Amino acid sequence: MVAVKDADFLNVDAVFCCLPHGTTQEIIAALPKNLKVVDLSADFRLRNTATYEEWYNGPHRAPELQPEAVYGLTELCREEVRAARLVANPGCYPTSIQLPLIPLLKAGLIEKDNIIINSNSGVSGAGRSAKEANLYTEICEGIHPYGITKHRHVPEIEQGLSDAVGSDVTISFTPNLMPMSRGMMSTMFVQRKQGVTVDDLRNHLVERFSDEEFVVVLEKDIAPHTRHVRGSNYCLLNVFEDRIPGRAIIISAIDNLVKGASGQALQNLNLMMGCPENCGLLQQPMFP
Amino acid sequence: MVAVKDADFLNVDAVFCCLPHGTTQEIIAALPKNLKVVDLSADFRLRNTATYEEWYNGPHRAPELQPEAVYGLTELCREEVRAARLVANPGCYPTSIQLPLIPLLKAGLIEKDNIIINSNSGVSGAGRSAKEANLYTEICEGIHPYGITKHRHVPEIEQGLSDAVGSDVTISFTPNLMPMSRGMMSTMFVQRKQGVTVDDLRNHLVERFSDEEFVVVLEKDIAPHTRHVRGSNYCLLNVFEDRIPGRAIIISAIDNLVKGASGQALQNLNLMMGCPENCGLLQQPMFP
Amino acid sequence: MVAVKDADFLNVDAVFCCLPHGTTQEIIAALPKNLKVVDLSADFRLRNTATYEEWYNGPHRAPELQPEAVYGLTELCREEVRAARLVANPGCYPTSIQLPLIPLLKAGLIEKDNIIINSNSGVSGAGRSAKEANLYTEICEGIHPYGITKHRHVPEIEQGLSDAVGSDVTISFTPNLMPMSRGMMSTMFVQRKQGVTVDDLRNHLVERFSDEEFVVVLEKDIAPHTRHVRGSNYCLLNVFEDRIPGRAIIISAIDNLVKGASGQALQNLNLMMGCPENCGLLQQPMFP
Amino acid sequence: MVAVKDADFLNVDAVFCCLPHGTTQEIIAALPKNLKVVDLSADFRLRNTATYEEWYNGPHRAPELQPEAVYGLTELCREEVRAARLVANPGCYPTSIQLPLIPLLKAGLIEKDNIIINSNSGVSGAGRSAKEANLYTEICEGIHPYGITKHRHVPEIEQGLSDAVGSDVTISFTPNLMPMSRGMMSTMFVQRKQGVTVDDLRNHLVERFSDEEFVVVLEKDIAPHTRHVRGSNYCLLNVFEDRIPGRAIIISAIDNLVKGASGQALQNLNLMMGCPENCGLLQQPMFP
Repeated sequence: MVAVKDADFLNVDAVFCCLPHGTTQEIIAALPKNLKVVDLSADFRLRNTATYEEWYNGPHRAPELQPEAVYGLTELCREEVRAARLVANPGCYPTSIQLPLIPLLKAGLIEKDNIIINSNSGVSGAGRSAKEANLYTEICEGIHPYGITKHRHVPEIEQGLSDAVGSDVTISFTPNLMPMSRGMMSTMFVQRKQGVTVDDLRNHLVERFSDEEFVVVLEKDIAPHTRHVRGSNYCLLNVFEDRIPGRAIIISAIDNLVKGASGQALQNLNLMMGCPENCGLLQQPMFP
Repeated sequence: MVAVKDADFLNVDAVFCCLPHGTTQEIIAALPKNLKVVDLSADFRLRNTATYEEWYNGPHRAPELQPEAVYGLTELCREEVRAARLVANPGCYPTSIQLPLIPLLKAGLIEKDNIIINSNSGVSGAGRSAKEANLYTEICEGIHPYGITKHRHVPEIEQGLSDAVGSDVTISFTPNLMPMSRGMMSTMFVQRKQGVTVDDLRNHLVERFSDEEFVVVLEKDIAPHTRHVRGSNYCLLNVFEDRIPGRAIIISAIDNLVKGASGQALQNLNLMMGCPENCGLLQQPMFP
Repeated sequence: MVAVKDADFLNVDAVFCCLPHGTTQEIIAALPKNLKVVDLSADFRLRNTATYEEWYNGPHRAPELQPEAVYGLTELCREEVRAARLVANPGCYPTSIQLPLIPLLKAGLIEKDNIIINSNSGVSGAGRSAKEANLYTEICEGIHPYGITKHRHVPEIEQGLSDAVGSDVTISFTPNLMPMSRGMMSTMFVQRKQGVTVDDLRNHLVERFSDEEFVVVLEKDIAPHTRHVRGSNYCLLNVFEDRIPGRAIIISAIDNLVKGASGQALQNLNLMMGCPENCGLLQQPMFP
Repeated sequence: MVAVKDADFLNVDAVFCCLPHGTTQEIIAALPKNLKVVDLSADFRLRNTATYEEWYNGPHRAPELQPEAVYGLTELCREEVRAARLVANPGCYPTSIQLPLIPLLKAGLIEKDNIIINSNSGVSGAGRSAKEANLYTEICEGIHPYGITKHRHVPEIEQGLSDAVGSDVTISFTPNLMPMSRGMMSTMFVQRKQGVTVDDLRNHLVERFSDEEFVVVLEKDIAPHTRHVRGSNYCLLNVFEDRIPGRAIIISAIDNLVKGASGQALQNLNLMMGCPENCGLLQQPMFP
């Protein structure tokens, strides 16, 4: 961690804060108030300080900034981000899950109950710190779940979905770690509202994101592949019929390091600074 | 495919049939009737010939053998297998899914509705044929779903679960292909019956498999990893609390080539021949 | 292969030819003579038609174009490429090997004898055709040599090195296939000329490539990693002391699909068309 | 590290010592003198204590045991191992390199000069400690050399080769780290003695290892693949023609964790204890 002084910021207008969860609160609080900040940690993602303290095991040290923080899920909060001074950049799982689910909940097309989510993440989601669990030999050629129902992204997702329906939503969330450096796929099993078809869900997402550069609803029946977003800021989405009557399967793919982290952060900063939103984000997916 | 004549079988008592789906029916029909057969194809897994023909796109060419065929999910049908002449060896996904779900359904501990399954498979599940989709460059560093709700293992799983409850069961089933040569993990999201706890589910499986060598219910809260069964005939299981009240998450891991294919076939043949059931199956998991 | 007619080319000035080895000769011969062509196949890489026919198993069908073809190892033949109408784009192994060795041979710093090369290639070098040998299950978690001393890039490399010294050079060349989609590393074991130090070799390369954007000699003692060029047009180089007196070890890393194929092709086309040489080639390496 | 007391060893006859390099010397010195020991560390591999201290950065703390230690390259030192009390188990690279080179040098079939070795190792060779360099994201989809000419296995290999010819041998040795959990391939470029053919080299190895269960010289022209030894105690070997007149290419493949470590240790202990040499070592390679 580098010591920074007010003077260092005299000539900059904005800053990314890429420090570990729990450490950015005090740093951001100490920054000049005119400096625009995109915080990549989880410190300002949860509006409710009690929820933060429960899931992140400790007191919040800058609660006075909380009301000012805007949750930066760009496509769904564009105007708030544009006007924001402090943006809490979303987590990777929450990005992949909320992008399709919030619009569908807001439109009243799916039930808020029985939302079941299984996600697969690449290893870079765990950062670059040297832990045995992330060694090549522990990861290659295998898969395992972790933090079942206890992952810290749960309250962040539930906050977003609850806001969308105006009442408390409780999700089932199982993340898995698999042999992939970067990439994330979320599979969401949902209950359609009475009379709503799978096509209705898909069409609503097509329309909702029709003007968006980075969120792409694929052609009907085409499955999102993580390798088709590798290195890019895209989120691929699609909706599939389920065998269980009344249900549907929604699948999303993002690069956890781009749309799930620094790409979305830059997208937000572009908005905050009045730059073209896609500035620095034109890199196309790399395959193979 | 090798031409075989009756005479070739004068000196053998049993045979594995490892030919592609749809090709073993006629071959097995032409074999001497005293020869014991374990068929690794799907040809005799579905009791209902109409269902077979719907999912496997063509007429069944040995329906007269169907009544004789025993479904070889060893731990759940041991006595039938022991007495069988013709065993239909289960598919890999059905093995990983039915081993925990059939006992729980039979015991009336979970609902037959809203059984939602997400499975991840290694690439060897697709065999060794040279298809673009299975090239290294298409598979490494990524994941994607395939055959959503349309995979041919669906009717096999639904047949087993329906038998367990005595009425039709319809499942949600999403298989995914991931960078792993061998291995399979199934994540099953189920609704508990009124008054049944997660511990009840887990305890029932612990008891049901307490005398089994190859099915292991892990210590509470320990997640199955595919890498802990690699190369072995084990199936690892566990049950987890869900955040959604009344639900539970069941996770299983097998090696799709061993317990999910040839290992279980050998286990069945051992039973049919009166050999020790674990004969040739003592290989321990290889890690890393 | 698409049928193309002269008329299709009325409005284009240049074309990439990305067809399999042996098939581009006739196609290029049939193209309008004013059309600039970069041929990514091996058809025009070998000046000596007899050598071509020996290594590629068949007659050359457009030998009249051979004299016109310029070998497009950009940094070493920039002016010839700039003036060329038909460029034979180098193979991936030859690019990784000739970039350091030709300058050292030309400068008389290394012996032409006992040049021993071991190269490791990612699987995309074999193209995307569906061959058993390139399946995920055949490639992952292993390495093996192939075409030992018999790889078709041998005559291409020997042609370049022989040109550099003005007499025949015979190399030892062992390529290996490893689990990596894209990337190539060549390890070259060479004999220094009497009185020449390892630093002399390294300094010569530093100076030779000091104005080059895409060829980078690393800081002393830093090893090239393929992951540091992934997705980019860079070639990383370095020279190391050997324990055997008088010898040195030269290591290069490229992305076989970029500097080893389409990237260098574009670099050549940029030159031929008078565009900035790095146009379309600014993508930085992607890590992880 | 567990504290062990003499009393703990009253009822055992032998012990493996699997502790880090540099820590086993004192421990072994403190063990009962009748206890047979196979030391998997490097502590007793180098006869010359000065060489040890130079390469392992510190004083040897049990030099009095050095004369007693037998180097356990089983196939080449079987009788010494059988009679030994203390065996220094060879390193993985030295095993893969010395198995073919020592017999050829002893038979006077190759020159002792210009022995150039390039080896590729799986990541488990670095142990399981949590280092950034061994994280999945650092290793997957790439390759890089390390410790060029400076790897600690160099003096161990040179000791063995020098013994074989009776004078000092200096090798070129470049190890590389690649995405593979277990496995090792060494490619050795050698100069044949005048009048010796490649077939002479291969035939000598065929004959030398004809009675060996674990060292297999492959059919002519068949390349060793690491995946064909995975999980087994085999060493696969072959010899290939080089394009450079008078030279040959020798390739070996082992599983670094079995023949390159614990498998060879058990093979040695079996000999020391009078058990069948292959006891516990019958596991066949696992593919895929």
